[in-house]
Amino acid sequence: MTEPVGTADAPQAGSTADFGREAPFMLDCGVELGPFTLAYQTYGRLNADKSNAILVCHALTGDQFVAETHPVTGKPGWWSLMVGPGLALDTDRYFVICINVLGGCMGTTGPKSINPASGEPWALDLPVITLGDMVRAQKLLIDHLGIDKLFCVTGGSMGGMQVLQWAASYPEKVFAAIPIATAARHTAQNIAFHEVGRQAIMADLDWCGGRYLAEGRNPDRGLAVARMTAHITYLSEPALHRKFGRRLQDRKGLTFGFDADFQVESYLRHQGASFVQRFDANSYLYITRAMDYFDLAEEFGGKLANAFRSTPVRFCVISFSSDWLFPTAENRDVVHALNAAAADVSFVEIESDAGHDAFLLDEPEFRDTLCGFLNGCAEHRGLSFP
Amino acid sequence: MTEPVGTADAPQAGSTADFGREAPFMLDCGVELGPFTLAYQTYGRLNADKSNAILVCHALTGDQFVAETHPVTGKPGWWSLMVGPGLALDTDRYFVICINVLGGCMGTTGPKSINPASGEPWALDLPVITLGDMVRAQKLLIDHLGIDKLFCVTGGSMGGMQVLQWAASYPEKVFAAIPIATAARHTAQNIAFHEVGRQAIMADLDWCGGRYLAEGRNPDRGLAVARMTAHITYLSEPALHRKFGRRLQDRKGLTFGFDADFQVESYLRHQGASFVQRFDANSYLYITRAMDYFDLAEEFGGKLANAFRSTPVRFCVISFSSDWLFPTAENRDVVHALNAAAADVSFVEIESDAGHDAFLLDEPEFRDTLCGFLNGCAEHRGLSFP
Repeated sequence: MTEPVGTADAPQAGSTADFGREAPFMLDCGVELGPFTLAYQTYGRLNADKSNAILVCHALTGDQFVAETHPVTGKPGWWSLMVGPGLALDTDRYFVICINVLGGCMGTTGPKSINPASGEPWALDLPVITLGDMVRAQKLLIDHLGIDKLFCVTGGSMGGMQVLQWAASYPEKVFAAIPIATAARHTAQNIAFHEVGRQAIMADLDWCGGRYLAEGRNPDRGLAVARMTAHITYLSEPALHRKFGRRLQDRKGLTFGFDADFQVESYLRHQGASFVQRFDANSYLYITRAMDYFDLAEEFGGKLANAFRSTPVRFCVISFSSDWLFPTAENRDVVHALNAAAADVSFVEIESDAGHDAFLLDEPEFRDTLCGFLNGCAEHRGLSFP
Repeated sequence: MTEPVGTADAPQAGSTADFGREAPFMLDCGVELGPFTLAYQTYGRLNADKSNAILVCHALTGDQFVAETHPVTGKPGWWSLMVGPGLALDTDRYFVICINVLGGCMGTTGPKSINPASGEPWALDLPVITLGDMVRAQKLLIDHLGIDKLFCVTGGSMGGMQVLQWAASYPEKVFAAIPIATAARHTAQNIAFHEVGRQAIMADLDWCGGRYLAEGRNPDRGLAVARMTAHITYLSEPALHRKFGRRLQDRKGLTFGFDADFQVESYLRHQGASFVQRFDANSYLYITRAMDYFDLAEEFGGKLANAFRSTPVRFCVISFSSDWLFPTAENRDVVHALNAAAADVSFVEIESDAGHDAFLLDEPEFRDTLCGFLNGCAEHRGLSFP
C-alpha cells in the first residue's frame, strides 16, 4: 500500500501512503473521503524504539520539502535553515517527518487530484477540509509508520495550528509541542485577508468556476494577486522599510506610469509570478478556508483551556515581536489557556523586525530557543544520541 | 466660463470651473494639460472680506460631496458628521469648499473624461497626476473664487497630504492647516497595498488595457478586490474584532463551502460591490499612483523641515492611536519637521480603536480638537461671527 519510508540516512524522495480504502475517513463536514493519498518526506533515521520522531507541520503555502531542494522551484526547502545535520532540528538525532496537508497540491489528495467518481480533477467537488481533518489524516500516517508517540510536533503559522490540534486531539501521542507564530483561532482580520485572496482567484475568468484544469486554463492573475496581498501581511512595516523603503527600480527616477517604479512593487510582482508556478489555486481556496474555520476552543465548549485539561504534553510557545498577522497577543492567549489547564508551558517572544515570516529565518534567539527546549525534552524523554 | 458659486446659504449642486485654456497648466510629469475641469461643492456663505473659507481636501476614494446626499449612492456626504450648521466645521460660520481632485471621477477631469484629441475617454493616455498637480489645480479654483487667503485647509489621509502640500507650496495663502491621519510620504507598505489593488484591477480582463469604457465593459471584479484589500487597511484589528469577530452569517453554522460564512466576509463583499457602483477603476489607478509618488521632503532637498521654513501657517496635526496605515509615528515625523522649522504646531493623538477610518467618524475628542483649534485660529484671524 505504501512506499518504503526513511529509515536510511538519505531523505526519501516522494514517499506516499494511501488511506481510507479499508476504513472510511469521515471529514468534519460529514462527508466520507477515500481513498486518499498523503505525500510526505522524512529526514534522519528513526531510532530502534521509534522515540525520536519530530513531526513538522507546514504552513498555508508550504509543503513536505522541508530541508531539501524543492522539486518544482529548485530552491532550498522552506526550513532548511533549521532542519538538517547539526541544525536546530538535528537530523543526526531526530527523525523528522513532514506531510503535505490534506487539500494540498504536492502529492497529497487535494482539489487538483483526480476524483475517482468522475475521472476528472476534484476541483470544488472536493469536500471542504478542516485543520482537524488534516491532523486526523496525519495521525493515520504516523500510526502507519509504527510510531506510537511523537517526540515533538512543531510548525509555524498554520503549522502551529496543527500543533495545537495534535496536542488537543492526541495528548498521549505527543511528548512535546512547539507552536510557533500562531493562534488558537483565526481572527476577523485574518479571515478578511484570506477572503480577499479567495475573491481575487474566483474573480479571474480563467478560474472557470474551479474547473480550470479540465478546461486547460489556470487563474494565474488572480492567484498572483492573492499571493501579493498575503505576502504583505507576512512582513512587518519596518522590514519592508529596511528592505525597500521608497527606493526606485531605475535610478533615472519616476517613470510617471504604471510599471513597477518602486523596488517594493517589483518584489511583490515577482512573489506573485513565482508563486503561481508552484501552487494550485483551488488548494489556496481550500487551505485558507481550513484556517478560517479553525477555532480550537469551539470544539471544547468555547473554553480553550478545556482543550488541554491534564495534558501531559510539554509546550514551548514562540511568537515574534513584529508579527502583526499572528501577533504575540494571540500566542499569549494560548499560553494563558495552557496555564489555566495547569500545563507545562514556556513562552518566548523573539525580538525581530522580520514580521510573521521570521519563523522561516535563522534568527539566533529563535534557534537557541528551539535547541534549548528540544535538548531539555530529550533529556526528560531519556533519548540518548550517538 | 464657470457656474455661479456658493454665496447663498444652500449648497450649490454641481459647480464646475474650467482652466488651462488661456494659460497652460504644466503637470509634474512635464506634459501640459488643458483645458480641464474642476468639479466642487461649497457649503455656508463666503463673508464680505472672503476670510472665512475652509478648503476640505478629500481622500483617495472621497469626492466633493462632503455634507450632502451623494448623487450616486444616495448616502450622506462622507464628512456630514463634521461639516454643517453647528458642527465642528460650522457652516454658519465658515464657507466650506471641497474640490474633486484632478484624476478623479466625479466631474473633475480624470481618465474617464473625454480626451479632446481623440474624442474618446482619456483612459491611460491621461498623463500621470501628482499630489502637487492636484494642489496647483485647486489653487487656480481658489483664485477664481476671489479668495486671497484660505482660513484653513484640512483633510484626512490623502486629504492630509494635500494639506501639507498646500502649506508647503502656498504658505502665504493658508492661515491654518489641519493634516489628519496622514504622512509626508507614502511608506513601502502603503505602496505595496496600492500596488496589489492596481494589479487586481489590471488583472481583470474587462479592464481591456484601460480602454473598458470605449469597449462598453467595466473591470468590476478587479476593482472590488482592490477595494476589499484597501478596506481592511482602513480598519484596525480591534475594530474588526468588535464589529464582526468570528460571527457567522447564518446561525445554523458553517456551510463547509466558499460562500460568505463569516459576517466579515459578507461585509467586505458588500464594500467591494457598492464601491464599483460609484468609482472609476482607472481613477483608482491614477490616484493611488499620486499617493505613492508623494514624498514632500524630496521636493525640498530631502529634508522635510525645509518645506516649512519660516512658515506663517498654524498647524494642528491629528493622528489616531489604532491607525496602522498612517500610524502616529508618520504623523509625528511631520510634527518633528514642523518643530525643526520653528512652526506654530500642536499635535494630538486621538485614542480610538477605529483605525484609519476614525477620521470619518464623530469621535468626541477628535471633534473637540477640531473645534478648539478652529476657534483659536478664528480669534487670531479676527473673524467675527453673527
